[in-house]
Amino acid sequence: MAENRRFLLVRRPSGEPVPEDFALVSGPIPEAPEGGLVVRNHFISLDPAQRGWMDDAPSYMPPIPLGDPVRATTVGVVHASNNPNFTPGQWVMGLNAMEDYSVAQPGGFTMPVDVNAVASPSNFLSALGAVGLTAYFGLLEVARPKAGETLLVSGAAGAVGSAVGQIGKIVGCRVIGIAGGAEKGRRLIEDYGFDVAIDYRGKSVEALAADIREAAPDGVDMVFENVGGDVMDAELLNLAHNARIVLCGLISEYNAPEKVGIRNLWRVLTTRSTIHGFLIADYADRFAEGGAKMAQWLGEGRLRVDEDIQEGLENAYDAFMRLFTGANTGKLVLKIA
Amino acid sequence: MAENRRFLLVRRPSGEPVPEDFALVSGPIPEAPEGGLVVRNHFISLDPAQRGWMDDAPSYMPPIPLGDPVRATTVGVVHASNNPNFTPGQWVMGLNAMEDYSVAQPGGFTMPVDVNAVASPSNFLSALGAVGLTAYFGLLEVARPKAGETLLVSGAAGAVGSAVGQIGKIVGCRVIGIAGGAEKGRRLIEDYGFDVAIDYRGKSVEALAADIREAAPDGVDMVFENVGGDVMDAELLNLAHNARIVLCGLISEYNAPEKVGIRNLWRVLTTRSTIHGFLIADYADRFAEGGAKMAQWLGEGRLRVDEDIQEGLENAYDAFMRLFTGANTGKLVLKIA
Repeated sequence: MAENRRFLLVRRPSGEPVPEDFALVSGPIPEAPEGGLVVRNHFISLDPAQRGWMDDAPSYMPPIPLGDPVRATTVGVVHASNNPNFTPGQWVMGLNAMEDYSVAQPGGFTMPVDVNAVASPSNFLSALGAVGLTAYFGLLEVARPKAGETLLVSGAAGAVGSAVGQIGKIVGCRVIGIAGGAEKGRRLIEDYGFDVAIDYRGKSVEALAADIREAAPDGVDMVFENVGGDVMDAELLNLAHNARIVLCGLISEYNAPEKVGIRNLWRVLTTRSTIHGFLIADYADRFAEGGAKMAQWLGEGRLRVDEDIQEGLENAYDAFMRLFTGANTGKLVLKIA
Repeated sequence: MAENRRFLLVRRPSGEPVPEDFALVSGPIPEAPEGGLVVRNHFISLDPAQRGWMDDAPSYMPPIPLGDPVRATTVGVVHASNNPNFTPGQWVMGLNAMEDYSVAQPGGFTMPVDVNAVASPSNFLSALGAVGLTAYFGLLEVARPKAGETLLVSGAAGAVGSAVGQIGKIVGCRVIGIAGGAEKGRRLIEDYGFDVAIDYRGKSVEALAADIREAAPDGVDMVFENVGGDVMDAELLNLAHNARIVLCGLISEYNAPEKVGIRNLWRVLTTRSTIHGFLIADYADRFAEGGAKMAQWLGEGRLRVDEDIQEGLENAYDAFMRLFTGANTGKLVLKIA
């Protein structure tokens, strides 16, 4: 019998989420509201930002209410529709939740996607979704790279970081990536074409800073920051004058009950650098432009965006936690249908 | 008998400077080098930046060599000259040191000043010097205020902060100042015309953040940051969207052996704000423009820049430390002649 399984947030995590913060429940498939639709979710995007939404803290989106399913971007098929713009059977993506079936209200973020144009519908959650667009607009519009400049990327083997580094190479930059472990370093060089890979694991701020200095003796012109904490402190010790830091994520801090913080902000002052808080949502009116360019580079083989596809809503917790253990090897997606 | 007393850095301070880090020595008056001059210093500028120069750390200027006098901006009179552009008896300002007589090399930063245009030659170290110009360019060129916006200033009762707040009022902003203690709060309101004064003393980050929120329920559009540490963390919790943070100083961190750091950088991300490292030296080619405007506002009675004049090179250490105890009540200047 068809049912709607839902992965609920039942308690706000204190630091690292534990299984008891969530509950998998089952209920009836919802009906389409007046003017809205019901989406059968096939692929669920698992993103660090979801951890922030679990906290009861001011942010760019309201916290996920306790008892609600965990908010997520999904790609799926229209199951029922009371909206003339959507037809059952049609593929769509939208801001829904970690559940089999989501209700999409009229005027929401749901939009049709052309799955025939891509290798897998999940691509709309990676290269052609928020991940790819974050890399595209964050690097090209916020950092504004010039050919010959040096770009430093943290979380470089991650979905966003690996795309940022590749786009940096496309536009003529020297690209240095920071990631954890030898295997990720190998992927940076061999799979994504970075010039230098630096392993942060087991290193003090000073030791990591020394490694960056060796790779970029004149300092780095741009930092694409996905990590924060000690990694960012080491980066700040290596800024060139007038460096631009794109503040895209601080994943090392999201689960930290006591945040490590940034101690080397004085280097931003002495180098006259700038830190730019960046959210991809602000570029919504240019998604088509960015998506077209990413699709072109993918088609030309100049860009590679890996996906780490986990399966089954019953594995939602374990899949989500791969974001924080460094286990994921590409854009993390949960396939549920 | 004429002599040259010099206040030397003999040991790099560990955290808060102690008297033993310095030595006051005496020697002969130097002679003017080929193409250079000797300046009899009258007024010495005491600035937080000097603390940074005492560390053996990369910065926008080389560290003060051990055994050298402490680098300082001074105003004084040409004592001897081998340079056709300077005449003995003429008033000049320049980047010299904490000593009775400084040798100025050709091509250095020494420039003539017109002491007849001001109430005291020390004004070239305050309203018409780096302090006033830092406030002027930092606020108007970096933060770029618009009338009706809310400006938050930390270290607001200090020399730079009080000028920033007053310029903010001149251009039509609502101005909130953070300073330590009731007397400084009184001065913010009564002497400098701030709209709101907040006392940070004895408050947690959360309590200070709540006070800022009460003063600016919709968040602050600009932060002029002189303090760093916990004060900055409280400010970051109150950023409006697209806020601009001018990073001018981090005085709470300069003497801290273990820096407190910034834990709320994530708020810069979620509000899409920007942090701009700022050094007044970058505006050197516009000092005349800024100085003229500051002089005009002073003359019109729209701007008040207080000076805290201490006396005697023998009191150099105690005078310098007033920067960090919060004892100073205006631009700190040491008068030695």
